[in-house]
Amino acid sequence: MSFELTILGSGAAVPTFRRNPTAQYIVCNDRHILIDCGEGTQMQLRKYSIRFQRISHILISHLHGDHFFGLVGLLSTMHLMGRDKGITVYGPEELENIVRSQLEISGDRLDFDLKFVKLNGKESKLIFEDNLIEIHTFPLKHRIPTNGFVIREKTKERRLISDAIKDSGLLIEHLPKLKRGENVVDEKGNEFDVEDFTWPPHPSYSYAFCSDTRFDESIVPHIKNVNVLYHEATFIEKDADRAKSTFHSTAKQAASIAKKGEVGRLLLGHLSARYESIDVHLEEAKTIFENTCVVEDGDVFRIDEE
Amino acid sequence: MSFELTILGSGAAVPTFRRNPTAQYIVCNDRHILIDCGEGTQMQLRKYSIRFQRISHILISHLHGDHFFGLVGLLSTMHLMGRDKGITVYGPEELENIVRSQLEISGDRLDFDLKFVKLNGKESKLIFEDNLIEIHTFPLKHRIPTNGFVIREKTKERRLISDAIKDSGLLIEHLPKLKRGENVVDEKGNEFDVEDFTWPPHPSYSYAFCSDTRFDESIVPHIKNVNVLYHEATFIEKDADRAKSTFHSTAKQAASIAKKGEVGRLLLGHLSARYESIDVHLEEAKTIFENTCVVEDGDVFRIDEE
Repeated sequence: MSFELTILGSGAAVPTFRRNPTAQYIVCNDRHILIDCGEGTQMQLRKYSIRFQRISHILISHLHGDHFFGLVGLLSTMHLMGRDKGITVYGPEELENIVRSQLEISGDRLDFDLKFVKLNGKESKLIFEDNLIEIHTFPLKHRIPTNGFVIREKTKERRLISDAIKDSGLLIEHLPKLKRGENVVDEKGNEFDVEDFTWPPHPSYSYAFCSDTRFDESIVPHIKNVNVLYHEATFIEKDADRAKSTFHSTAKQAASIAKKGEVGRLLLGHLSARYESIDVHLEEAKTIFENTCVVEDGDVFRIDEE
Repeated sequence: MSFELTILGSGAAVPTFRRNPTAQYIVCNDRHILIDCGEGTQMQLRKYSIRFQRISHILISHLHGDHFFGLVGLLSTMHLMGRDKGITVYGPEELENIVRSQLEISGDRLDFDLKFVKLNGKESKLIFEDNLIEIHTFPLKHRIPTNGFVIREKTKERRLISDAIKDSGLLIEHLPKLKRGENVVDEKGNEFDVEDFTWPPHPSYSYAFCSDTRFDESIVPHIKNVNVLYHEATFIEKDADRAKSTFHSTAKQAASIAKKGEVGRLLLGHLSARYESIDVHLEEAKTIFENTCVVEDGDVFRIDEE
């Protein structure tokens, strides 16, 4: 089991030679998730040798083109390559019509089930969970309704202490209860304290995605204590007015959110094409929050090693 | 003045690491034209250092995604980079709604005039002309209505013979008439034969684009004698059945069209991702038409040097 993030696109609205528009690929306990899908995402997935038919959930933050223009092409290619496994897309209401109308016009019908879940960019809620992970959304503050996301590992099972269990009289059927953290009483009335036979679970890790948004402290409770926070940093301080008027953030503002959220690590992305170097972003952010890096296309981060 | 073709994408429906979906950039006598606009075209234009704000005409052959999914992203980036010069898109009727609805949903309004000209994939006609070039469309035979295109230089001006004109009594105001190929009679009644004072014009070159289409000899009159013919060659002969059922062509079929059309040179593209090598395409085509090449992304061809 692992929790890994691959940056497929780290640029802003205008892609550059080095920075594709926003897209991120996450593997969390064998769940394969795509966040945003800017133009060229399918080529980036291929470039980084990611087997994209494994993706089962696609989260779209908002309907600015640099966050979704690659979606219809990716779905189309999944179909052409023989996909039959369903996929769920979470995003703004209008997305479904945009995607389906383009797929329909080509005259080809998908051989897999394509499901859309509407997000309105106004509420925080759980949008997916299974036995191992949860995905939450919360509102960001941008020019149009925009969704942030948090992916969390659920509390893991306690780990069995083999040496203690051996010759204790515990039976195999008792172990699931111990793993869940419950004490066991066997048929003869013998009591087994969970603390004696298990170690605490491994920690559960979490990742939060915030793009695009202006500086907005109301998101702090949603990203509180995540291991890794990705926050957009379209601008630097000298362009703070521009950040404000376009509902984007500066690197320093992103760092301020990271600090208030007491997160483990801050990743900055969505850098405007106007900046040739990342130095100022990094310098400004680090004055507020030291454990910061500016992401590049192709970067891979182990969330569970933070 | 020049006539140059740059291959931006040479792949078929499923892009590969080396072959992007279809897009071609043409400069013909300083007219800048894009044919098709598969996903990632804006990145390809950037990769090959093409100043894409110069593009004034975009021709879309048909509405399969690998031929137009990059259009909205390109137009969006043109806007974000400050474009104010109008642009005309020629393509199937439904294209306008697809593009405008995606642009509208982002909440941004274009600062340039975006005009759509509808092509129905059923008729051959002149769709654009000015003093130097003409663009024609003609129907291809694919699963959905599809347009082929021919770009032609108009007949050029005759070239003045300086030594003959000097001391001949011809005045500057007489020269345009000579260039147009007309004899001149001056105010005194002196006659000047155009053949004595001008050389014939340089040849006019032409380029035809045929993708996607099944083998269809009815296109031959439209591409007759062009200097360069681009024809799709999605398949090779061993997959001829698949070519037929999907309304595509084999390399040999494309070569047969080139031979019947008595063109100067044949370019093959839109190769299916199933083929790792271009060798069979080339070999099969050359048995029919020797002057053939298989294009790659980034290839540049001088149409006026063929």
